[in-house]
Parts: sequence; C-alpha cells; structure tokens
Amino acid sequence: MQLSNPPGRPTLADTLRQRRQRLAERVQFPVALWSGRSASRNFPANVHPFRASSHFLYFAGLPIANAAVRLEAGRLELFMDAATAADRLWHGEATGRDQVAAAIGAAAAYPLSHLADRLDGAATIPVMETATRQQQAAWLKRELPAAKALQAIDQQLASAIVELRLIHDELAIAEMRRAAAVTVKAHRAGMQATLGTTTEAEIRAAMEAVITAHNMSTAYSSIVTVQGEVLHNNAYDHAIQPGDLLLADVGAETESGWASDVTRSWPATGRFSPTQRDIYDLVLAAHDACIQAAQPGIEYRDLHLTAAQVLAAGLVDLDILRGTVEQLVEQDAHALFFPHGIGHLLGLDVHDMEDLGDLAGYAAGRSRSERFGLGYLRLDRPLQAGMVVTIEPGFYQVPALLHDPERRRQYQDQVNWERLAQFADLRGIRIEDDVLITPTGAEILTQDLPTAADQIEALVSGD
Amino acid sequence: MQLSNPPGRPTLADTLRQRRQRLAERVQFPVALWSGRSASRNFPANVHPFRASSHFLYFAGLPIANAAVRLEAGRLELFMDAATAADRLWHGEATGRDQVAAAIGAAAAYPLSHLADRLDGAATIPVMETATRQQQAAWLKRELPAAKALQAIDQQLASAIVELRLIHDELAIAEMRRAAAVTVKAHRAGMQATLGTTTEAEIRAAMEAVITAHNMSTAYSSIVTVQGEVLHNNAYDHAIQPGDLLLADVGAETESGWASDVTRSWPATGRFSPTQRDIYDLVLAAHDACIQAAQPGIEYRDLHLTAAQVLAAGLVDLDILRGTVEQLVEQDAHALFFPHGIGHLLGLDVHDMEDLGDLAGYAAGRSRSERFGLGYLRLDRPLQAGMVVTIEPGFYQVPALLHDPERRRQYQDQVNWERLAQFADLRGIRIEDDVLITPTGAEILTQDLPTAADQIEALVSGD
Repeated sequence: MQLSNPPGRPTLADTLRQRRQRLAERVQFPVALWSGRSASRNFPANVHPFRASSHFLYFAGLPIANAAVRLEAGRLELFMDAATAADRLWHGEATGRDQVAAAIGAAAAYPLSHLADRLDGAATIPVMETATRQQQAAWLKRELPAAKALQAIDQQLASAIVELRLIHDELAIAEMRRAAAVTVKAHRAGMQATLGTTTEAEIRAAMEAVITAHNMSTAYSSIVTVQGEVLHNNAYDHAIQPGDLLLADVGAETESGWASDVTRSWPATGRFSPTQRDIYDLVLAAHDACIQAAQPGIEYRDLHLTAAQVLAAGLVDLDILRGTVEQLVEQDAHALFFPHGIGHLLGLDVHDMEDLGDLAGYAAGRSRSERFGLGYLRLDRPLQAGMVVTIEPGFYQVPALLHDPERRRQYQDQVNWERLAQFADLRGIRIEDDVLITPTGAEILTQDLPTAADQIEALVSGD
Repeated sequence: MQLSNPPGRPTLADTLRQRRQRLAERVQFPVALWSGRSASRNFPANVHPFRASSHFLYFAGLPIANAAVRLEAGRLELFMDAATAADRLWHGEATGRDQVAAAIGAAAAYPLSHLADRLDGAATIPVMETATRQQQAAWLKRELPAAKALQAIDQQLASAIVELRLIHDELAIAEMRRAAAVTVKAHRAGMQATLGTTTEAEIRAAMEAVITAHNMSTAYSSIVTVQGEVLHNNAYDHAIQPGDLLLADVGAETESGWASDVTRSWPATGRFSPTQRDIYDLVLAAHDACIQAAQPGIEYRDLHLTAAQVLAAGLVDLDILRGTVEQLVEQDAHALFFPHGIGHLLGLDVHDMEDLGDLAGYAAGRSRSERFGLGYLRLDRPLQAGMVVTIEPGFYQVPALLHDPERRRQYQDQVNWERLAQFADLRGIRIEDDVLITPTGAEILTQDLPTAADQIEALVSGD
C-alpha cells in the first residue's frame, strides 16, 4: 500500500479533508461507508482481486479491505481490525491501523466492530459485495435496497456524493493522468505486438502486461477483438487474419481506484484498406468534432448528436446513407451503425457512479430516451470544468441490427445496402479518449496515443 | 467457447457421459448443479471475470454463465437462456443452447426458468456467487447452508462427487497437462525477465502475460515477491534488490477450469549466495524425497512428515537445529520454518473441492490436527492412482513466528539462533510441482520446469 505522498501534489490527508468538508456542507447526518471484502471465486479462500467500494475510496483514499469510515461534520473515523496471528503468517505484516489513520487524516481509529454502536441516524451506500452489504443492513438495523434505488438519507447522501465526485479535484486528476499514461503505453504495446501475433489473446496479453507491470489493474474487462461489432466482447480466442481490424478497448486503474478507458482500432497488417480507412477517418472526424466542441456549459447530449451528425454526413458522402443529415439523425439511421452513446463519466468507476443508476449520469428531471439512437446514452448533463468524460464514437456492422428484416424495411429508403456491401471488410471501429473539461475547453488526458490513421499504421508496422 | 474435440482424446460428450454414469451409481436422487453468474466489482455491469462453479464444470464441461444441468440416472438436461436482442448487440452471437446441448451430450435443453419445476427431491451444491445461491434455495424451496456444511441428500451428493473428482479421468488429466505446460512457460518467462526488471510487478506481468496469451486465466492470485516468507503475499510493489530471492507461485487455469499450481524460488542476480543455496538444496531434497515416495497406498500425511524429517535433518546438519530428527519433528521444531502443509489436491480448483470444507481433503473419520506442524495440512488420505496433488515444501523466516518471545523460549534448546542469523539473506523459499499419482508411482506434470539450483541460475542469468 502506497502511504507516501508524491512531491508537488496535495497530500492525501489534505485532499480527503477537503472532500469531507464539502460533504459536510451538503449533509447534516453522519455517514458510514464500508470498503467491502473480496468476493469468492470457486471456493471461499480463492478470491477475486480485492476492489474497495468507490465511495469508500473517495473519502478514505486507500484500498483497505474490510474497513469502514464514519464521517460527521468534517471529522473522519476509521474502523478496521488489526491483523491476527494467522493473518500475519499468511498475509504478512499489514500496514497498521494507526499508520493508515495518520495517512488519511483520521481523528480516531477503532476495530471494525466498534462501528456497529456508532450508526445512529447514519446514511450509507450499499457496497456490491454481499456479505458486507448484509453487515451494513444488520448494523444500521434497516433494509438496504440496491444502490440505484436508495431512499431518504441514503438517497440524500448519494446526491451529495454525486455533486462532489462529478467535479474532480487535483489529486483525482493526477491519479487519472497516471492511469491514462499507463493505458497509452498498453495500447502502444498492443499495436507494436500485432505483426508478430496470431491470436487476440496474445495482443491482450501484451497490453495487460504493461498495466500489470505498473502494478495497476484493468479498470474493466478488456475488449481485444477482430469482432469489433460486438460491443462488449470478452472472448479472445479468434485467430487474426490478414485484412482484419483489431479493436482494443483497454484501460488501467490505479491502486487507489482511478480509471482510464481507451479504445483504438488498427489493421492487423499495419495497412488499412481504402474502405477501412474511409470509415476510420469518418469515426475520427466525429471523435475530433466532439472534443473540439466540449467545454463547460455544453450539453453532453449535444456532443452525442454532433457525432451522429458527422457520421450521418460522412455516410451520405460515402453513398451508404441517403437523405439529409438532419432527417437521418432524427430517424436514427446513424444508430444502425452507431448504436451506443458517445461516452460516459469517468472517475473511480469506468462508468463513474453507475452503481447509483442514472443519478450521476442524468441531470435532475431527465431520464433515458425511448429513442433507439439515444437510449444507450449514459450521460445527459451540461458539462462543467473538472468533469472527466469519454468520447468514443464508433461504426459497427452488427448482424443483429443490419440483418433484422424489420429494420431493413424501415430503413429501405435511407440505406444503400448494395453500397454498404462494399464495406464488408470492416466489422467495427471505435476511437475513444478520456477528456478533462477545463474552464475554457477540454484536455485529452490520453493525447499521447495517436489517433490519425497514418500514425496508427506506423505504430503497427514499425515504420 | 471451444466446442471442437481435439484429436486423439476422448470426446467431451463421452467423458461427461461416463462421469454422470459414475454419479448415477452412487446417488438415487436427481441432481441439479448451477454454473453461477459473474460477481459485480465496483458497479453492477462491471464484473469480475466469469468462473463457473467447479461442480457444474465437472458434469457440464463448458463454462456457460447462468446455466444449470439436471442429472438423473445418467441422463443430462441442460438449462440456459437464449440470447436476447440486447445480449446479441452487446455480447455478440453466443453459442446456441442446442449447439451446447449437442457438445455435452444433453438429452434435452430448456430455458433456465424451466428448471424451477423439475427440482422435486433434487440435491445440489450451493455456488459461491450469492444471487445464484439465492435462486438455488428459492427454487429448491429450502434453506441452503454453506457448501462445507451440507445436510441430507446434498451431503450425500457432495460425498459422491468427492469420490468421482478425487480420481481424474483422461480428459481431466489432459486438461491439467495443458495448464501445466503453460504454467511452465510462465515460470521460465519470469526467470528470464528477472535481470531486466526492478520490481515484483514486472516479473508478475511477464509471467501472467504467458498465461493470458494462451487464453487461460490464473488459477489463483499470483504470488510474486521478494518477501517469500509471507505465504499468501498478494502485493507486488517491492523493488528488487541484488541479493533478494524471488518467490513466484503462479498457475494457469484452462478455459474449462482445470488448474496448475507451481512455485519456484530464484536469485534476483542469477546467483544464489552460499547460504541461500544451502537452504534451497535442502528444500529441494524434501521436494524430491516426497515425490520419490509418492505412490498408491502411501498416506499423504506421511509425505508431509517425510518433508519435515528431511528439513529437520538438513537443519541439524547446518547447525540451525539441535537434537534428533525424530524429536525435532515431534516437537514441531521444523514447523518454525515450514509452517504449512506439504500440499493439497489439485483439479478444477487449485485446492480441489475446498468449497466442501475438508470433505475431499480428509478421509472419513479424520480431522485436522491440533498440532502446529500439522494443522495446516489440507490433505490426509491414502494416495490413489489418478489423484493429482501438489508437493510444495518450503523454508521461511516469518517474523511473527521467529520473533515471538513464547516460541523463542519454547525452542531455546532446539534452535541455534546465532547460527540462524547467518542465514538472514533468505526470507522464503518454496519449490512446488503438480504430481499425478500413477499405478506404480508418481509423474510430475510440471517436470519440464527445472528445480536444480544450477539450472535455475542458468535460466535466470541466461547462461
């Protein structure tokens, strides 16, 4: 566990103090947040890697298993058990409770069980892991619904936390820059490994090795596939054929939980075909237009529509779509090829605060659209300085959409199916970067990773 | 998902038929086994990699999420849902239910919900993942205790499954050979990467990359550490210093769940110091003596005691321990340096069937010893042909044991503390291989990975 503070940055203790002071300005009741425990894999002692609850991490800063913090009026109390003799034998000398308390600026520190007596009137957010969630409910002496359906003070707490976590402080941004830098290296390694490899699994291995070597973890299950049209593809068993495009959506997460989320698409041979390059350049134009337009006050939903318009216009130019851009977007014709949203919040979670449902993603009074082209949009708020969002347009040929007889009828006048057939050598392309909203515009945290087709080709082919 | 059958091996369907026929000879009631679902990590959609329940895998052969099988009198019924339109968009065209049913020899296949009506009098084993465990209890209309404390027909089922899973069939052994081969490559990669690296994390990355590149997963959280005395060390953030020993306990698991589990210890510089080599050779002598002695009919507990005796004798020779070997082992003096058991069962779980508590590890009527030197022994049965076990003696200097004032008093006549202080340049050494018990002896599944100190040095230093 990293307890030292890198030079030139606000200390962890200072940052956490500011976070809980901001919380204290918003809620008048005590708050208890648990970190959770490791979930068992195939038997109790064989566990998945521990991931502390993100809300705990935001206020406690360190990934301590089976711990809790109690926050009240800006004061922090830490609850965690000292290691037992068996713990010390099997797991080593853990960082002691007092050391942790000092590092995070806790006013007091107790064994975990002491928390049970200090929960009168306290609000919480339920963790994902079941045994701890049961402990939360038992100690609070009330039922806890899912985190996306909280009531009363828990709901007020969730709303207050959303206000805080939406706008990242200096330490959070520094952590996300670290995650972004390692993610950039991982993607470069993936591209550079491609010519020597024959399977998706080998490219995934080259990318994740960079993340592991930096003692980080993947922020989500990596997508490394020649079947780019499968949006959340977690199989890696396909052989790579000449002419294939690779789509890699891989991101690192720092030890204290801050995420990166990046996608690149590249040709297995190092050279895009003319049709692949046409579509690649179009997706890149949508990507660039969104980032160019991003700044405080802009509606994220309008960035989504900007991407839709750029894609529709480009597909008209390529004679794949027919009609006016305005009408095509209104008819969701672009969504046949771009069925997901332009991106999402990024922070301690790769879809930040998605445990709370749409509370973070959707401004008060807004909800998901029924429209096919908008229903998967995860974020619908005006942008503010300090937010970090992804921008990730794509173009996909999804058989379940394009071979659906009803959709083919519905879009018979808008889609030139014969022309589309000439683009059969690309299944899916996505270009995704992490973008910090600044007071005057946007900064790409992952800008050290090229996007231009020529540069991608050069990285893959080693030119 | 791999549905084809490699040439020259029994087909999956044939193997599964034999397994359920053997089960039908042992239980007269229907059996329902669920695969489980992915556990959520930090929010519901961000999940840990899926791992099907091992009991499901044993009878269903393929890692299908959210599925179940019903076994009765040798007949197999498969229960899994067809992909929805949203599933197909986000996760692609999954292998269809009928295809899976054909591959595994199911007599019939239904949506999962149909199982609820076919559970009269059925036994089960609860899975680790909570939501599915709740579904098991609800559909069976009874409470389910933890898998290690089953009652009535569930307990009878567990005992029958233990009889089957203790003795591996040809397909299981073929899968474990595959896992072993990749694990051997991973350890070679770790040794070969050492001279160029400065942190534990980099060596871990080099080793796990081999496993990932073969589209396998780690069978357990890797241990790659300069603090070898921490038995289950899952931190990787130490810098490697000249003079350090690396201890790497890393194993691959095949896509269908079969595990390997291997440890090697090597010098960071490529050269053991004289004291390190003395202890390394001693641990290796214990390792070799156990494997030499392993054969059907031998008590595994006696292998543990063989290791204890070899270690005690060697420590007497090195003037670290004083006394007769017999007395030292009886007094658990060896356990100051070798506090864990000599190994465990290996199969679909790295500690095979440990979800059932000691039901698999301990022969009927036996239970854990109160003795410090035996209490951590996970396996106490006579060996039988077809078992796979690990052999993993070690020598550790655990501060929590060696600096304990009570233990120092207790062993003041047995331990030469001044002499021990001369061995301060080694913290932990373990040598672990996977061993198949054959009709006439034992075969090391991981024999392609050297154990001799000279060969280890050559691999690390590139000689």
